[in-house]
Amino acid sequence: MKIDIITIFPEFFQPFLETSIIKRAIEQNLVTIDLHQLRDYAHQKHNKIDDTIYGGGVGMLMQFPPFYDALEKLRTKNTHVIMLTPQGKVYKQKKAIKLSQKKHIILICGHYEGIDARVDNFIDEEISIGDYVLTGGEIPAMILSDSIIRLIPGVIQQASSEEDSLQNGWLKYPQFTKPDSYQGFDVPEILKSGHHKNIENWRKRQSILKTYQKRPDLIKTIKMTDEEKQILDEIKSKTDK
Amino acid sequence: MKIDIITIFPEFFQPFLETSIIKRAIEQNLVTIDLHQLRDYAHQKHNKIDDTIYGGGVGMLMQFPPFYDALEKLRTKNTHVIMLTPQGKVYKQKKAIKLSQKKHIILICGHYEGIDARVDNFIDEEISIGDYVLTGGEIPAMILSDSIIRLIPGVIQQASSEEDSLQNGWLKYPQFTKPDSYQGFDVPEILKSGHHKNIENWRKRQSILKTYQKRPDLIKTIKMTDEEKQILDEIKSKTDK
Repeated sequence: MKIDIITIFPEFFQPFLETSIIKRAIEQNLVTIDLHQLRDYAHQKHNKIDDTIYGGGVGMLMQFPPFYDALEKLRTKNTHVIMLTPQGKVYKQKKAIKLSQKKHIILICGHYEGIDARVDNFIDEEISIGDYVLTGGEIPAMILSDSIIRLIPGVIQQASSEEDSLQNGWLKYPQFTKPDSYQGFDVPEILKSGHHKNIENWRKRQSILKTYQKRPDLIKTIKMTDEEKQILDEIKSKTDK
Repeated sequence: MKIDIITIFPEFFQPFLETSIIKRAIEQNLVTIDLHQLRDYAHQKHNKIDDTIYGGGVGMLMQFPPFYDALEKLRTKNTHVIMLTPQGKVYKQKKAIKLSQKKHIILICGHYEGIDARVDNFIDEEISIGDYVLTGGEIPAMILSDSIIRLIPGVIQQASSEEDSLQNGWLKYPQFTKPDSYQGFDVPEILKSGHHKNIENWRKRQSILKTYQKRPDLIKTIKMTDEEKQILDEIKSKTDK
C-alpha cells in the first residue's frame, strides 16, 4: 500500500513514522508513506497558499490550485482520495478494514478556516475522526494511517490484532501483570490459579460486565452467542436489584 | 491550565508542541504541557515497564507500579485523570468544552496490549476518541490537547472559534478564495456580487443542504429556527422528487 499525505506540516509526521509498528511496516515494504509539502505547489509568492474568503468571513482559506496541481501529479486510476474534515462521515473500525485493502490512498489535511470548496470535486471520500473541532487535518491523518497500517497483513501478529478491543464487539476483560501486589492493590486470585477453564469463564463474564457498565451503546451492535446472552441477562438482573 | 501527559513516547509530542496555536498558547502562559516518560518510574532493570499477562494472553501489559508512582507525584486534589482507551466514552465537542474549564488534566497513554487494570482505581474518566483501534494513546492525547486548548479563552480569535463547523450544529457552507477561475472550476457568481443579504441567504441554504446530504445524523441534534426548518423542508421535498 502507498499513502501520500498532502500537508503544510510534513515535519509533524516525523515521530509518527519512527514509531515501532509504522517504522517496521515501512522497512518491510508493507507500506510506503510519502509526505508532500503543499507549499511546493504554491502559485503565490513566498509559497503562500491561503487567501481571504469570497463573500466575506473570518480567517483565511487554503487555495484550490495547489491542491489541484498536487492531485494531478499524485493521482492514478487506483487512487482513493480522502479529505480529513469534521464534515465527513464519522470514522469506524469497519471503514479502517475497508481502507486497508486499498492500493493507494491520498490524505488531504486542511487548515485555517478550511479549503476552497472546488477541491471537493477531486475527493472520493470525506472522513471525520469524530465530532470535535481540531486545528488541522494532520492528527486525523495519523489516526487513519495508524489504524489502517495495523490491519495490513504482516504488520502485527494476527492473534494480537484479533484480540484488540472492539474487533469482536465486547470490551476486553481487565488484565493484570506482575507484581501481584503493590500498595495494597492485588491481582485477582483466579488469574493465578492456572485453571484455564475458570479463567476463561471469568474473563468472558468480565468482558460482558465491563461493556454493560461502560459502553452499553455497543451492546446492540454485537451478535451474541446464547451463552453471552445468558450472562448478560444475569448481570442485568443483579445490577437492577 | 496544566496538562501532564504520561507516555513512553514523549518525543512523539515534540512537533505538536511546536504547531502555531499550541506554541502560542504555551508562550502566552495560557497552558502548560509537561511530558512525563513513564520509564523514569520503572521498577525493573533497563527501565522496562511491561510484563506478561496473568492467566495467559498474547503480548505484554504495562505495569501498575510506574503509573501509581507517577500519579502519586503529579496528582493534586484539583486533578482530573483521563485514560485514553477504546473502552472509554466516545469523545465529543461538548466534552472538550467541559474539559477546557479544568485546572489540571493528566492524560495517560496506553500501549502494547493494554495497562494493568489496577490503574483504573486512579482514573477519573476513560475517553475514546472513536470506535477504531490504534497502536497507542499518544495520538488520542494530542487530539484531546488540541481540541481543549483551542477552547481556552485567548488562544484563538473568538469569532473564528464560533464559526468552526459543528459548534452551532450545521455543517459550514462551501467557501471559496482566489483565484476565481482555475482549470475550468469557478467561484459561484453570487459570492462576488457584494450583496451581503443574498450571500447570507445562499450560505444558510448551502449549510443546511450540505448537512442534509453529508451528515443527516446531525440534524436531529440541531435546535432549528423556523426559517431553518422551512429551508430544510424545501430541500427535502426537492430531493425526494
